Amino acid sequence: MTAWIDLSAHEIAAAVRSGRMTARGAVEAALARIEKTDSALVAFTTVTGARALETANRIDARISAGEDPGPLAGVPFAVKDLVDVAGVITRAGSRINMDNAPAAADAPVVTRLEAAGAILVGALNMGEYAYDFTGENDHFGSTRNPHDPERRSGGSSGGSGAATAAGMVPLTVGSDTNGSIRVPSSWCGLFGLKATYGRIPRSGTFPFVDSLDHIGPMARSVQDLALALEAMQGSDAGDPASVPRPPCAALETLDQGIGGLRIARGSGELAATEGVAKNALDRVCAALGVTLEADLPGAATARASAALITAVEGAATHAEAMQTRPEDFGRPMRDRLLAGALVPGVAYVRAQRLRRQFAEDAAEVFRHVDAILTPTTPFPAPRIDSDTLEIDGREQPYRKHIGIFTQPISFIGLPVVSVPVQNAAGPLPLGIQIIAPAWREDVALRIARTLELSGTCAAPVPAFEETSA
Amino acid sequence: MTAWIDLSAHEIAAAVRSGRMTARGAVEAALARIEKTDSALVAFTTVTGARALETANRIDARISAGEDPGPLAGVPFAVKDLVDVAGVITRAGSRINMDNAPAAADAPVVTRLEAAGAILVGALNMGEYAYDFTGENDHFGSTRNPHDPERRSGGSSGGSGAATAAGMVPLTVGSDTNGSIRVPSSWCGLFGLKATYGRIPRSGTFPFVDSLDHIGPMARSVQDLALALEAMQGSDAGDPASVPRPPCAALETLDQGIGGLRIARGSGELAATEGVAKNALDRVCAALGVTLEADLPGAATARASAALITAVEGAATHAEAMQTRPEDFGRPMRDRLLAGALVPGVAYVRAQRLRRQFAEDAAEVFRHVDAILTPTTPFPAPRIDSDTLEIDGREQPYRKHIGIFTQPISFIGLPVVSVPVQNAAGPLPLGIQIIAPAWREDVALRIARTLELSGTCAAPVPAFEETSA
Repeated sequence: MTAWIDLSAHEIAAAVRSGRMTARGAVEAALARIEKTDSALVAFTTVTGARALETANRIDARISAGEDPGPLAGVPFAVKDLVDVAGVITRAGSRINMDNAPAAADAPVVTRLEAAGAILVGALNMGEYAYDFTGENDHFGSTRNPHDPERRSGGSSGGSGAATAAGMVPLTVGSDTNGSIRVPSSWCGLFGLKATYGRIPRSGTFPFVDSLDHIGPMARSVQDLALALEAMQGSDAGDPASVPRPPCAALETLDQGIGGLRIARGSGELAATEGVAKNALDRVCAALGVTLEADLPGAATARASAALITAVEGAATHAEAMQTRPEDFGRPMRDRLLAGALVPGVAYVRAQRLRRQFAEDAAEVFRHVDAILTPTTPFPAPRIDSDTLEIDGREQPYRKHIGIFTQPISFIGLPVVSVPVQNAAGPLPLGIQIIAPAWREDVALRIARTLELSGTCAAPVPAFEETSA
Repeated sequence: MTAWIDLSAHEIAAAVRSGRMTARGAVEAALARIEKTDSALVAFTTVTGARALETANRIDARISAGEDPGPLAGVPFAVKDLVDVAGVITRAGSRINMDNAPAAADAPVVTRLEAAGAILVGALNMGEYAYDFTGENDHFGSTRNPHDPERRSGGSSGGSGAATAAGMVPLTVGSDTNGSIRVPSSWCGLFGLKATYGRIPRSGTFPFVDSLDHIGPMARSVQDLALALEAMQGSDAGDPASVPRPPCAALETLDQGIGGLRIARGSGELAATEGVAKNALDRVCAALGVTLEADLPGAATARASAALITAVEGAATHAEAMQTRPEDFGRPMRDRLLAGALVPGVAYVRAQRLRRQFAEDAAEVFRHVDAILTPTTPFPAPRIDSDTLEIDGREQPYRKHIGIFTQPISFIGLPVVSVPVQNAAGPLPLGIQIIAPAWREDVALRIARTLELSGTCAAPVPAFEETSA
């Protein structure tokens, strides 16, 4: 049997559906891998082993009875711990939330993935209240990068990134408000999907910024993203922002290639300047034969506006707790919320207005191109022991730079697939964003699949494997 | 021929379509009436006489040719001067806007009313930037009440109220952000309609608070409101908030009576406490045989939230002008904008969140009733020479009380018809709000029509007629 880490979700599902593997076997392999690697990576906050084995037994029984448990049959998966899991406290990375009652029911995305045959094995560590790009957490420990445990996993879906990259599970669910699926996908070397705002319901998840929050999958193959999207998509009454739309049939079109697609390299405010990111984008553009360029004018201001809206809404959400128990927030979180509380309402309103203009301008750009490529992050995973990096030729605090490519895009809800490129200069991967127009996840996934088939993009086997094995 | 002031829009249209009156005759009568009465009432800012006569000639030619110019054939109408009229500066009640170029085209609501045969005769005075409930304007003069020129018209659609009540035109277009159609309808003794948010497009109108702004008709008969609604409704690409919906066929159902409708008197936070308002509501409830009561819990907080959102968005819109030419704002306007600039973003965000909760709670209430009745304003038109009234047993500034019944309703976009009740204690009318669930303008209009047919509600002939004739 192939090493567990190499099996993707669709390979496991194929093996389980054909009887070459049992769902119980898949779950046991995942639990064993978690037990072996998680203490060093700090990816899981809860492992739901008993539940997972029970579910696996039911799936195996259905297969024995000749039934088809679905396209994700037997696939172990885990969710960022802001997604409700029945009987588990939804921590959202916060000590304060530990005082809450356990969730009464699974979130719809969990129910939907399980309805497709997947098996939940646990909840995943994350940055506090999702207000984070690094994967650090003052309360439950910071998640480490499987490609170098001395480096950041990226965040806030850090546990999702580390668990998927380390082969604990082939598929995880993350959330993305300003880049929180894409940043750990970039730093951990994964395929990550932030679907169009409204495509996947957020019901039963702990909110951060309602108009920016997205839920989405992270995996080691494009096909797995498409399978997860098909299972997770569709409106839900519990999330008024999730709109009834024709489902995205990404799987059907995945292997159609990129013929006829007008793919552009990000320029202007979306241009890659840092060496590693520029090199990765060069390779992707060369593989696709990209000759066009496209900018989203106003991207830098859009990014600042997203940050401001995030700060104010975060401060509004946590205002009571900031007054009654400020010491129970982590230091960086507390600083961000204090800053958010000082922003005038007029600035918030103007940021929202700018957003509508930026969305209209972007829609105009997408009349001329079908996709825009940028780096996902301007640099690969930084070391945990330093808060600075050399950027633009000088050593400086790096945190404020992490979201420069991701934030303008989630600000206007466009779908993005982040694809992993192995860094030629060393063992660290780095992601490239494939940005498509609203509701065209299928376009971004087709391009990602083309890059995967060409060998340009692949989730690398982590160095961690060698050091801990 | 009946005195001009007594003819409603549908009566004029019937006369013009049948050849008993010419469109030119209708327009000439309106222009004569405007010339006779407007200098004392300060209702019009621009009279488009030449354009109106040209349009009238075209309509008369069509009628001579056997064509039907539409259900509003020959009806003179005028629009609040925040609605674009080709070739006219859209003042929005502001001295600052006088520096703008004239509008290049008519707003869609003007085009649509003219497509139904109506004839624009001018633009109407209003409170500065629509941030007003009284009809006062420091730049162009304050509009006076036709029922007593020493009293306020109500605002901000004060010119619309005075022009309609004084019989200058049978139909006007106003705008309503927190009550600006309904308050002058109440104080001037008119029927006024604030349709469901999104029903009538605001394209080509000067904005105040995007998520609260409504455009709608004011008239002296219910049938005229229904005719105007049918002409004005429907989405327009220029207003993203105007949503494609099945049109409201209010005219067809107008005379079906109120059988089967569960009509409730406002209680709790929506209860009428002041004597005149309570008496008017008593009479309307008696005429309808109302036995039910209904409250919208949280209405007072909703109202405060609407006021806060209005202040912040107003301050955001006018921030540059407040810095570069503060002296060009009227004093009350400047004070409101300064206050709005001081509101923290967190308070704004929390007001928006409260809004969603209030909308959900109200939808629940409307599962049990079909309409709720409240006063439109807590008191009839105050005197211009005083800023105080006796309210709750003591003399106090009255402005902050004007919107207590209107603001919570526009906050969540529900349709309302304000119907006029003659004040038994004197010559001043006062309005009653008929509040219906979203998209059910037809229900509110049926109830209004029943009250009109019973003689309980009618637009009174103004005392002004006697003093100025």
